[in-house]
Amino acid sequence: MFESAEIGHSIDKKTFREAMPKLREALLDLQYDLKEKADFPVLILIHGFDGAGRGETMNLINEWLDPRLIDTVAFAEANDDARARPWMWRYWMQLPTKGRIGMFFGSYYSDALFDRVFARSDRDALDRQIFDILRFERMLTMDGALVLKFWFHLTREQQHKRLKQMEKDPASSWRVTKTDWEHYERYDKIRKSAEHILRLTNTAAAPWVVVDGEDANYRSLTVGNTLLNAIRNRLAQAQGSQAELIDAPPLLAPIDNKLLLDTLQLDQAMDKASYKAELEKLQGRLHRLTRHPRFAQHSLVLAFEGNDAAGKGGSIRRITQALDARRYRVVPIAAPTQEEKAKPWLWRFWRHVPGKGGITIFDRTWYGRVLVERVEGFAKEADWMRAYYEINDFEHQLSENGAVIVKFWLAISKDEQMARFKGREETGFKRFKITEEDWRNRDKWDAYKLAVSDMVDRTSTSKVPWTLVEANNKYYARIKILKTICDALEARLG
Amino acid sequence: MFESAEIGHSIDKKTFREAMPKLREALLDLQYDLKEKADFPVLILIHGFDGAGRGETMNLINEWLDPRLIDTVAFAEANDDARARPWMWRYWMQLPTKGRIGMFFGSYYSDALFDRVFARSDRDALDRQIFDILRFERMLTMDGALVLKFWFHLTREQQHKRLKQMEKDPASSWRVTKTDWEHYERYDKIRKSAEHILRLTNTAAAPWVVVDGEDANYRSLTVGNTLLNAIRNRLAQAQGSQAELIDAPPLLAPIDNKLLLDTLQLDQAMDKASYKAELEKLQGRLHRLTRHPRFAQHSLVLAFEGNDAAGKGGSIRRITQALDARRYRVVPIAAPTQEEKAKPWLWRFWRHVPGKGGITIFDRTWYGRVLVERVEGFAKEADWMRAYYEINDFEHQLSENGAVIVKFWLAISKDEQMARFKGREETGFKRFKITEEDWRNRDKWDAYKLAVSDMVDRTSTSKVPWTLVEANNKYYARIKILKTICDALEARLG
Repeated sequence: MFESAEIGHSIDKKTFREAMPKLREALLDLQYDLKEKADFPVLILIHGFDGAGRGETMNLINEWLDPRLIDTVAFAEANDDARARPWMWRYWMQLPTKGRIGMFFGSYYSDALFDRVFARSDRDALDRQIFDILRFERMLTMDGALVLKFWFHLTREQQHKRLKQMEKDPASSWRVTKTDWEHYERYDKIRKSAEHILRLTNTAAAPWVVVDGEDANYRSLTVGNTLLNAIRNRLAQAQGSQAELIDAPPLLAPIDNKLLLDTLQLDQAMDKASYKAELEKLQGRLHRLTRHPRFAQHSLVLAFEGNDAAGKGGSIRRITQALDARRYRVVPIAAPTQEEKAKPWLWRFWRHVPGKGGITIFDRTWYGRVLVERVEGFAKEADWMRAYYEINDFEHQLSENGAVIVKFWLAISKDEQMARFKGREETGFKRFKITEEDWRNRDKWDAYKLAVSDMVDRTSTSKVPWTLVEANNKYYARIKILKTICDALEARLG
Repeated sequence: MFESAEIGHSIDKKTFREAMPKLREALLDLQYDLKEKADFPVLILIHGFDGAGRGETMNLINEWLDPRLIDTVAFAEANDDARARPWMWRYWMQLPTKGRIGMFFGSYYSDALFDRVFARSDRDALDRQIFDILRFERMLTMDGALVLKFWFHLTREQQHKRLKQMEKDPASSWRVTKTDWEHYERYDKIRKSAEHILRLTNTAAAPWVVVDGEDANYRSLTVGNTLLNAIRNRLAQAQGSQAELIDAPPLLAPIDNKLLLDTLQLDQAMDKASYKAELEKLQGRLHRLTRHPRFAQHSLVLAFEGNDAAGKGGSIRRITQALDARRYRVVPIAAPTQEEKAKPWLWRFWRHVPGKGGITIFDRTWYGRVLVERVEGFAKEADWMRAYYEINDFEHQLSENGAVIVKFWLAISKDEQMARFKGREETGFKRFKITEEDWRNRDKWDAYKLAVSDMVDRTSTSKVPWTLVEANNKYYARIKILKTICDALEARLG
C-alpha cells in the first residue's frame, strides 16, 4: 500500500505558490456548488503516522475552504456515553449532513488499528471490526455519500526525524506528546496492521488515498487536488446514474509526476561469469526448496509482468530448469477465450491454481485487468477499479491456503526496449516475438507507467509483495528473480 | 427468516394443473431469450432441510426447462483436488457461463452450515466463511450474474413425518439415508445456524427465497414463479442501467395468497378482572427486572408497530407505568425532520439508542422504511430492499452491545379498526387521533399485510424476534406485550 509514498515526493516553493491560488479558488467554488446543488455529504477521514501532517492538513482544509460548511470532529478515547453503546454509535452521531463536508480526525479506523497494535484485539476481533466498517461504509456510499480516506505516510526514519525536529523547535515542541513516541516505538506494528486494514477496506466505492507526508507542499497540493477532483467528479455524476456513483475513485497521478518506476536504477552490473556461478547455486537452492518435505503443504505461484521484451520468457526458463517437470506448469496468458469471456474475469486464473505441492508460473497474469485492460479501455473504469479489491481477495485466499505467491514486474528503459525490438526484427528465429501490438504498447509508455505504480500501491502487501526487477541487464534480472523466489520459499517453509 | 414458511401453504391439484402449462411455456420462452439475448448467467442455489423437496425441485427445473441449457452440479464432500486448494475453488470452477443456468445442489453454504452444525468450526470461523461468501457473491452480482438462493423449509415435525413417509414407501425408501436421520437429530442446531447464515447473506443483490417445502404443488409453483419473475426482470433491466441490476430481488406474494397475518386469531378472550390482576403482577415483575443489578450491563429497546388504532399508545402507557421515569424515554416516530432527512436514513434511530441501563420505547420505528415508505413509494425499491439488511445489521450491533430488543406488531381486524375509527370521531377528546392519513392507509390494507409478512420473514431472528400481537381485545394485547417483555428480559438477565 505504501510503496509510492516512500520514494520521496516534493514540490518546490515556486510551483506551490503558483498552483495554490487557483486550487483554492476552484475548491471554494466547488464547495458552494456542493451546498447549492448536491444531495450528498462528503466525509473525509484523516489518518496516518504521527508527524505526517495530519493536523496541518486539517487546518489547511479549514483555511482553504469555507469553514462554515465544514464539520471537523476529532475523536479521542470514547467517553462514557459512547462506551455504553455499540462502537459505531459515536461515528453515526457525527455524520455530516447532505451538502456539507465532515472531516474526521481519527475514526473507527483508529479504534481498529490501535486495538490491534496495543493487543486489545486479536486477529479475529480485528477482522470483525473491519467487517463492521465495510458494512458501515457500504451503507454510506449506497446512501450517496462521497467518502475520502487519507493515510498520511512516513517511513520509520522520516518519522523519527520529524518528531525530533518538532521537539527542537520551541514553536512546535508542544505538539510532540508521549503518545507520539509510544507510537513511534511501535512503528513496524502500526505499519503492518495499517496495511492489513487498508487493504481490506480499500474498496472501489471508498478507496484509500495514501499521501507521502514528508514535504508539506506536496502533501497540501495532493490533498487539495484529490478533493477537487473527487468532489467535481461526484457532482458531475450526481446528474448521471447510480452505477457511476458507486464506483468513483480518486486515482490521480502524483502531482510531482514522480512515479515508483522512476526510482529504479535499470542498469545494474553483472558479468557472465558471476551470473553462471550464481545461477547454478540458486537453481540448486530452488530445487532443494521445492523438494523440502514441508513444501507438500504449500504451493508456489509465480506471477510475471513487465515491459514487452523485458525478458520474462528467459527468466521463466531459468526457473523451470531447476524444477521437476511433473510439478510445475507454465501458463501463458493471452486474450481470453470465448469460454473464459463468459465467466467472471478471474475464472481463467482460478482454474490454474495449483494444489498443495504444485507450482504454477503465470507468464502475464490477472494484473492484465489493471494494466492493458485499463490502458486500452477494454474494461470500464468501475470494473478495473473493483479489480484491485478482487485481486487482493484472490491472492489472500491462495495465501491463506498455503500458497507462496511471488510477483515480478520486469522493467527496462525505453531505449533498451527499442534496441531489443530491433534485435528481434533482425534475428530471423526471433521475429515472431515482435508484433504490431508491441509497437502500439510502446506508444502508451507513460500510461503504463502510471498503471504499474497504482497496481503496486494497491496490491503489494506484506504477505504478497511485488518485486520490481531492474532488467536492462538480463543476467542481473534473472539472478534477482531466482533469489527472491528462494528467499520467499525459505521464509515460508521456515 | 422462516415464519411465513411455517404457516402451512398448499395449492390444490386443479389450480396446479391449470397454472402449470402456462408457467412452463413462459419459462421455456424465457430460457431461449436468456440464451439469445442475455449477457449474464443465472446461478440457482438449492438448500434446505432433507425431505423438503430439494431433489424433486432440481428434477422439476430440468424437466420444465431445456436441460441442454442447464448445468446441474451436486456438491458432495470435497475431493483431494478441492481440498488442496482454497475452499471456494470448486465453486469457482463450476460457475455457469453467460446465457446459461447453473444449478448448485449444495454449495459453499453447505460447507459453512455443516461445519458449524458438526462443530468443525466455531463462531469466528463461521463468520469468516460468511465474509468469504459475501465477497464471492458480490463479485458475481457486480459481474452481472443473477443469483437465486432457495431454502426449502420444513418444521421439525414435518421433517419427521416426511422422512417416515418416504421410508415406508418402497418407491422412495432408498432416498432416506443415515445422513438424513443424523441431520434430523440436529434439526434445532441446523435451523439456528441456517437462520444466522441466511440473515447475514440475505443481501439485496442476492436475497434468499424461503419456500415452504411440505406441499409439492405449492413448492413447485413457487419456484417456477420466482424463476420466471426474476429472470424476466433481469432481462428487462439488462437493457437499463447497472444500478437496477444490483438490486433486483424476487419478492413475490405467496402464490396461495396466504400471509402470516392471516394465521392470527385476532379475537382473544380476556375480561377486565383478569386483566387487572395480571397487569398488576406483570408491572411489578417488569419493575423488578429493570432494577435487577445485571440490567446495568444491558439496555431495553421496545419497538412498536401495528395497524392504525391497534392500541400502541395504550400499551406503551401500561409499560411506562411500571418504569422509573429517569430511566426510560418514549420516542414517537413521525415523518423525518429536515435535519434527519439530510443524514443516512437510520441516523434518526441511532441517535435514540439507549446506553447501558437505559430503556427506549419507539412508538413506530425504523420499520417504517419497509412499511409506509415501501407501500406509499416514498423509498425506491432498491432502497427499501437494502433496508432489510441494514436493519438486521443495526439490531445486531445493538444486541451484541447488550440491548434486549423486543418488537411488536399489533394486529386488529379491518372491522375492529372501523369501529375504533368511528369511536374516535365521536369522542371529542380523541378526535385528534384520527386523520385523513388513517383513512388512506386503510385503503391499502392488503399492501400493508404483504409488507408486514415480508418484514417479519426478513427481520425476525432468534435473537431479535418479532412478536405478533392479536389486538382486537386490548386487555389481551397489553398482557401479552408485558409478558413478552418480561420473558425476554428474564432470559437475557439469566
